[in-house]
Amino acid sequence: MAASCRLKPLSRVAVCGGTHGNEMSGIYLAKHWLRDPMELQRGSFAVKPFLGNPRAIEKRVRYVGQDLNRTFTTEFLSSAEAEDEPYEVVLAREINQTYGPKGSAQAFDFMFDLHNTTASMGTCLIVDSEESLLPMHMCHYIQMHYTRSPCPVYLYKLPGEETYSINSVAKAGLALELGPQPQQVVRADLFTQMKDLIACALDFIELFNKGTVFPAFEIEAYKITGRMDYPCYPDGEISAMVHLKLQDKDFLPLNPRDPIFQTFSGEEILYEGNTTIYPAFINEAAYYEKKMAFAKMEKHTFSIPGLQRE
Amino acid sequence: MAASCRLKPLSRVAVCGGTHGNEMSGIYLAKHWLRDPMELQRGSFAVKPFLGNPRAIEKRVRYVGQDLNRTFTTEFLSSAEAEDEPYEVVLAREINQTYGPKGSAQAFDFMFDLHNTTASMGTCLIVDSEESLLPMHMCHYIQMHYTRSPCPVYLYKLPGEETYSINSVAKAGLALELGPQPQQVVRADLFTQMKDLIACALDFIELFNKGTVFPAFEIEAYKITGRMDYPCYPDGEISAMVHLKLQDKDFLPLNPRDPIFQTFSGEEILYEGNTTIYPAFINEAAYYEKKMAFAKMEKHTFSIPGLQRE
Repeated sequence: MAASCRLKPLSRVAVCGGTHGNEMSGIYLAKHWLRDPMELQRGSFAVKPFLGNPRAIEKRVRYVGQDLNRTFTTEFLSSAEAEDEPYEVVLAREINQTYGPKGSAQAFDFMFDLHNTTASMGTCLIVDSEESLLPMHMCHYIQMHYTRSPCPVYLYKLPGEETYSINSVAKAGLALELGPQPQQVVRADLFTQMKDLIACALDFIELFNKGTVFPAFEIEAYKITGRMDYPCYPDGEISAMVHLKLQDKDFLPLNPRDPIFQTFSGEEILYEGNTTIYPAFINEAAYYEKKMAFAKMEKHTFSIPGLQRE
Repeated sequence: MAASCRLKPLSRVAVCGGTHGNEMSGIYLAKHWLRDPMELQRGSFAVKPFLGNPRAIEKRVRYVGQDLNRTFTTEFLSSAEAEDEPYEVVLAREINQTYGPKGSAQAFDFMFDLHNTTASMGTCLIVDSEESLLPMHMCHYIQMHYTRSPCPVYLYKLPGEETYSINSVAKAGLALELGPQPQQVVRADLFTQMKDLIACALDFIELFNKGTVFPAFEIEAYKITGRMDYPCYPDGEISAMVHLKLQDKDFLPLNPRDPIFQTFSGEEILYEGNTTIYPAFINEAAYYEKKMAFAKMEKHTFSIPGLQRE
C-alpha cells in the first residue's frame, strides 16, 4: 500500500435517513434537513438529504417487502422489472439511478446512511472494509474531534462478499449505527449525537476538499467474522435469551467459557469458541428474524496510508 | 368505606402474555409456562397461562387490526359478528367467553396481564382504580416483598370511563408494565423481574386463600388525569421530541416551567401546567400513533381497608 494517496475532491454528498423505516434518529433528522437544509451547508460541496424507504417510514416498520439495505446487489439492481417484485427492489433501482449507478463515474461521491440499533453500540461507525481509504480517514477524524463518546469502527464486509448496502451505490460511504434506541422511538440524546457526528464528518470533507493533508495513521477497528445464532427448540422457537452478563456489552471482550445465553428455565449456555471475540449488535430487535443473537467481531489494528486531494 | 372486607377465595387465575404481540417478556414467559407450568403451581388454586393475541405475536407487532387491550368494552363484546370486523374484535369475544363473561359469576377470579414499555417505568403495577380492593392489597404485598426495585402503582381508569382492558373480563386483575425494553426484544433482566413479580403475586393469593388476615394500610399511587400530546407541524408530523431532561424520568415530579420538549431545530418547550405532575409512559413507542408523549399523573395517598377471605 502506498504511504500516501491522492483522491479527487468531493462535490456531491447524500445523507439518507430511514433506510429502515423504524429507526427514528435518521428519519427525523432527514425530515428536519429536508425542511431546513442550512445545517448541512458547507462551502465546497453540496449535500442532499433524502428518505430511504418512504413506505416503510409511513408504516413505522423496518421494511415492507424485504430489507432495503440488503438489496443493492448486482442481482437486484440488474434484474428485469416484474409485477410481483418486492417494493424495495423497485426502490433500490430508483435510488441507484438517482445516486449511482453503483460503480459508475456518475455516482455520488459519498453517501451517509443513518441507522439505530436496540443494541448498546454507542456511536458506532460502519465502513465496508479497512481498504476504503476516505471513509477510514473520516472515522479517524471523527474519533479525534467528536470526543463525547468513543466511536468504534465496525467493518461489515465478509471476505469475497459483494457490497449490498444503500451507500454502496455512491463512490464511498459511511453508516452511523447509534444505540441503544427502541424501534419507533426518537431519543433526544441520540438525535443530537447523530446530528453532531454528521456535522463533524462534513467538516472533514470540507477540510479534505480545501487541500488539508491527512497523514498516515494506525487505527483499531472491529471486523466481522461471523454470527452467533440463538439456541432453538426443535420447532424453531428460540429457547434462550442473551445472558444478563452479555447484554449491553457490545465491543467488550468475550472469552471462551463466558456465559452468552440463559434458557427461559434458567440454565446458562457458555461461549464455546477458542479465542476472545468482541460481540456487536447484541440483542438487536431486527435480527431475531434471522435468529442472530450477535455478530462475532475480531479487533485489529490497521495501518492507513495518508490522504490528500489531487 | 368499611374498615375490613371479606372476599371469596380465588380458584381460577389466568396469566396472559402477548396482549400486545411485540412486548416480549410476557410472550416468552407465557410460552415458557405453556411448555412447563410448574412455576405457576400453588396449592389452593389453578393458574392458566395463555397467549393474548396469537396473530400479532406471530408477526411481532402490537396488533393486527386494532389494539386488543382497548377492545373489552360492551360495544365490542356485544357487537354482532360481521365479516369485515377486525381480528381483535373476534378475539376479544373468544377471550371473554373463555375467561369471562365480563361481569358474570362465571368469570375467572383473577387475570394477570404482562406488558412492556419503552419508557423507564421500572416494575410498574397497573390497576384500574384504588377501589379494586384485592389488587390494591396485592400491590401492597408486592411492594413489601419484592424489594429489588420500587413498584409504582398506576391507576389507569379515568372517572366515568368504562374498563376496556383484557383483564377486565376477570373479576379482578393486575397488569405488569416493565420497562424500558425495546419492542421485539427480550432482556434477561426484565424477564427475571417479571417472573419474580408473578411468583410474589401468586404467593399473595395463596396466603389470602389460606386465611391470612391483611390489615388496612395507606399506599401512595399515581392516578392518570390526562395526556400530553406532541407538538406538531400543520401537516400533522411531530415537530419536537421529548426533552433530554424529561426522558427516562417516569414517576418523577415535573414542575411548571420545566422543559418537556425540544424541537428538531433545538428550541425548548416548557410545561405550562399550574401544578406538579408525575409523567409516565414517557416516550412510549406505541403512543406516537396516538400523538401522546406522556401520561399526566397525580400522586395520591389512599387508605385501603383490611382484607381477609370469607
